[in-house]
Amino acid sequence: MTQHPLRVIPLGGLGEIGKNMMALEYHRDIIVIDAGVLFPEEAMLGVDLVIPDISYLVEHRDRVRGIFITHGHEDHTGALPYVLRSLPVPVYAPRLAHGLITVKLKEHRALRGVKLVAVEPKQSIRAGAFRVQFFRVCHSIPDAMGLAIETPVGLVVHTGDFKIDHTPVDGQPSDLGEVARLGQKGVFLLFSDSTYAELPGYTPSERVVGEALDRAIGEAEGRVMVATFASLISRIQQVITSAHRHGRKVAVVGRSMVDNVKMAQEMGYLADPGGVLVPLKALGKLPQRQVVILTTGSQGEPTSALVRIANGDHPDVRVMPGDTIVVSATPIPGNETVVSRTIDNLFRLGARVLYDKVALVHVHGHASREELKLVLSLTHPRFFVPVHGQYRHLMAHAQLARDLGVPKDNAVVLQDGDVLELSHAGGRMAGQVPAGNIYVDGLRLWDVKSAVLRDRRVLARDGIVVVVLTVDKGTGQVLGTPEVVSSGFVDPGEAGELMKRAAQAALGALDHRSRPSQPLDWSYISVKLKEALGNFLYAETHLRPLVIPVSVEV
Amino acid sequence: MTQHPLRVIPLGGLGEIGKNMMALEYHRDIIVIDAGVLFPEEAMLGVDLVIPDISYLVEHRDRVRGIFITHGHEDHTGALPYVLRSLPVPVYAPRLAHGLITVKLKEHRALRGVKLVAVEPKQSIRAGAFRVQFFRVCHSIPDAMGLAIETPVGLVVHTGDFKIDHTPVDGQPSDLGEVARLGQKGVFLLFSDSTYAELPGYTPSERVVGEALDRAIGEAEGRVMVATFASLISRIQQVITSAHRHGRKVAVVGRSMVDNVKMAQEMGYLADPGGVLVPLKALGKLPQRQVVILTTGSQGEPTSALVRIANGDHPDVRVMPGDTIVVSATPIPGNETVVSRTIDNLFRLGARVLYDKVALVHVHGHASREELKLVLSLTHPRFFVPVHGQYRHLMAHAQLARDLGVPKDNAVVLQDGDVLELSHAGGRMAGQVPAGNIYVDGLRLWDVKSAVLRDRRVLARDGIVVVVLTVDKGTGQVLGTPEVVSSGFVDPGEAGELMKRAAQAALGALDHRSRPSQPLDWSYISVKLKEALGNFLYAETHLRPLVIPVSVEV
Repeated sequence: MTQHPLRVIPLGGLGEIGKNMMALEYHRDIIVIDAGVLFPEEAMLGVDLVIPDISYLVEHRDRVRGIFITHGHEDHTGALPYVLRSLPVPVYAPRLAHGLITVKLKEHRALRGVKLVAVEPKQSIRAGAFRVQFFRVCHSIPDAMGLAIETPVGLVVHTGDFKIDHTPVDGQPSDLGEVARLGQKGVFLLFSDSTYAELPGYTPSERVVGEALDRAIGEAEGRVMVATFASLISRIQQVITSAHRHGRKVAVVGRSMVDNVKMAQEMGYLADPGGVLVPLKALGKLPQRQVVILTTGSQGEPTSALVRIANGDHPDVRVMPGDTIVVSATPIPGNETVVSRTIDNLFRLGARVLYDKVALVHVHGHASREELKLVLSLTHPRFFVPVHGQYRHLMAHAQLARDLGVPKDNAVVLQDGDVLELSHAGGRMAGQVPAGNIYVDGLRLWDVKSAVLRDRRVLARDGIVVVVLTVDKGTGQVLGTPEVVSSGFVDPGEAGELMKRAAQAALGALDHRSRPSQPLDWSYISVKLKEALGNFLYAETHLRPLVIPVSVEV
Repeated sequence: MTQHPLRVIPLGGLGEIGKNMMALEYHRDIIVIDAGVLFPEEAMLGVDLVIPDISYLVEHRDRVRGIFITHGHEDHTGALPYVLRSLPVPVYAPRLAHGLITVKLKEHRALRGVKLVAVEPKQSIRAGAFRVQFFRVCHSIPDAMGLAIETPVGLVVHTGDFKIDHTPVDGQPSDLGEVARLGQKGVFLLFSDSTYAELPGYTPSERVVGEALDRAIGEAEGRVMVATFASLISRIQQVITSAHRHGRKVAVVGRSMVDNVKMAQEMGYLADPGGVLVPLKALGKLPQRQVVILTTGSQGEPTSALVRIANGDHPDVRVMPGDTIVVSATPIPGNETVVSRTIDNLFRLGARVLYDKVALVHVHGHASREELKLVLSLTHPRFFVPVHGQYRHLMAHAQLARDLGVPKDNAVVLQDGDVLELSHAGGRMAGQVPAGNIYVDGLRLWDVKSAVLRDRRVLARDGIVVVVLTVDKGTGQVLGTPEVVSSGFVDPGEAGELMKRAAQAALGALDHRSRPSQPLDWSYISVKLKEALGNFLYAETHLRPLVIPVSVEV
């Protein structure tokens, strides 16, 4: 008889796209699934990356038996360099992810002492009370896996990010047979990818994109550039294959894609039997209709190759009229504006641009509703927890599960930090653990309570005004006129004169009766100065800059 | 014989969505079509609004005969309060737009002295060498018009924002007969709406949405809230009609929608024969299934009613489980993230939410490709200039025109500020006039050259550090230790200690040999301090805050 419940503790990726992380706990054993980052929104000013809050895991670090990585994307692996610092546990990952993580940890000089294990499909790993077995799924990177986890309470299946592609480029379809076999054994709990739980029908096969790319490359009169995700090895393979067919050479531009192509070739995930891959500088000698350039930047990332090319700002590649540029990606939510601007800039430079709205040059890597139904039908789980997606995606996926026969209360929409306890008697919510955004900013990690982002938001809106008072150390009296400087507030041409008048306003705010005779109470004066200057500046400009008073004692 | 060319001078809306404005010039006469605003992107930190640069018009203000408004949306009218200040010319607008502009100018206390004329379809206005006649089109606001403009060079047709809806809610379809008649007279130049030039097929009729809304309202067990654009009178009409049919009352929440509903009723654009419109406080007495709430906020605007409701932060309306909330809009490009967050928050509060991805609760107000083809076919213009849209939309629309027989060089993609001269002999580009973003920020107007936004961007990224040096007025020597303060840089808990060390670093940067004996060269010292402190702080944090040195003389 089971004495303990299985505890499900999502730490990231539930109610957002990215930063995926999930803990499973049984008695004194914890395993972790994925450790991803979230790329910051524009409103997270100056933040480099967002990682999950792992304080619960750190607190119970003696129980954590390992981190199981489903595939090599950053939103599933990118937090590892930070997580492993305070949680030095074994990491199990499919072979390609293992390679990518190794590179990433090396960059962070964090590889030493880490136990990083490459696993194959069907391989089984014991981790405390858990036994974890990987099975193959299709996604937009090779070597993506789902997990079948034996627990004392029952079998848990986690799909990872997946789609069902019967004709994938690498010839390795999702292992539906294994999913069916698990279903026959009886699945206690299913976690399934909800990213596209709103989308009706089936996600098309990568093969469809291959055909569109081949047509674009075959028909182009001049050069062809293809921008896609650096990790989308299957897409890169399609471009190489198609270039070979049409007598073109391919050069790769953009550091992350160059690195990935090199690694994928070495590890056998990318084939170039025709030898079409050449260094960029070799292209100069070729006629334009023998040239293909593969590049990063399909998400409009400001420092990426494609964006620099679109801005006419790349040292090696300039757009020429006659170029065909294929943006082989769909904007991730939040990137719509920058992607759209990049496409416009390419058009302005005279290129013909093909993108998702006008040509079938991308399919996404996640299952649509019919595929989600298939997995639910094959596994018919007792409990269902939708993972990976914004809250409405989780809601839609839970409803789908109920429509397919999962009892209403057994399809549970969790949010990060929720603790769900499951046993054969049923499920219950069992409180909360810390979960939320940890911001990586240079060498610092902030949490949401930090004032840094709040202050930056104020600075970003209306700028800053600093007022410096000189105070006599002995008497505490203010000497002379305050010095007032500003930044990001009004135009520098206007600021000088306005700051002079602000200095007078500051002086006026100091109580005239007390000023010459009494020592200053700085905390009182500081509040008063902020208020008086704030009012003066608002009346003048209708702006509310941050006002910071500084006292200098002499 | 024509002696002068027709000059086409777009000042906004070509290569972007919003801020629509176009000038037509013949010899010594200029007319202006629309004067819109652009709502700022997140990257335009703290900016309230963006308006077109009208310096060319101001320079030639003696030639400007009037501004012709196609319809009452802000992206066609919102710049009027600013434009009329320096360009006090007559404004001609359809009746509803006239009403909305009057309200807007009153708010800005800018109505006095303005000649604002309400026009009807088929009405004709002489303006210098031009004669302008309005014709009816369908759009997502009643009383939208296109313009037929007789010029000495030939007939110019401007579609305004339009779609072809054979079954509009107000029973006033686009006047295709008039467009056909103009085509038979011979159209020299066509301007046509490119917003959805990428979208195949036809835009569905508003009637389709009416049916979906009626189903949602009819089936709901509890309250229904419908969020849409405050100016989308036809959608509001559909909700009122449907509420009446299902025995519900309707209250309007959100100032702009309350104002618009009031005006639309007074002007006869909105009918409430059943008397279902009631004040919000009257809803409290009704059973939940007799309640409909109409609200603003369908674009996730931070201070809108729906967003406050979704945040549990509205003084009068709280979401209850059992509520059905319909977001009857599609996110405008750039708003995807905030709309998505709002929908998620409503789900979290327990509501059932219907939105564009899962129900047909919105159709857009612009023509799709088949409708654009129809207008091109009916007018078969000699010249074609696509208007309203991002650059790739203009490119797609120009290509469509060429496919339909407009000679290649006569379908001209312009960008704001381009001057195109057209005559019977042909067209030629004739230079540039100033055009671009003017930022409205409180009471100030900045142009792109202003340092304000650049400074805000630096502040927003890594914050600011201010270093105050006290300098002896007589000798120019630095006294004591510099005072260093920061904001938005590192956590306040850490800042104190770090700023102390920064002060020492600043002191160290002052050349020790010269410090005690020589007066300071402030510009030299300032550069040196910025560099030394910047390096110190980067080494400590990997952040690059703005460093501002201030000297105080005593």
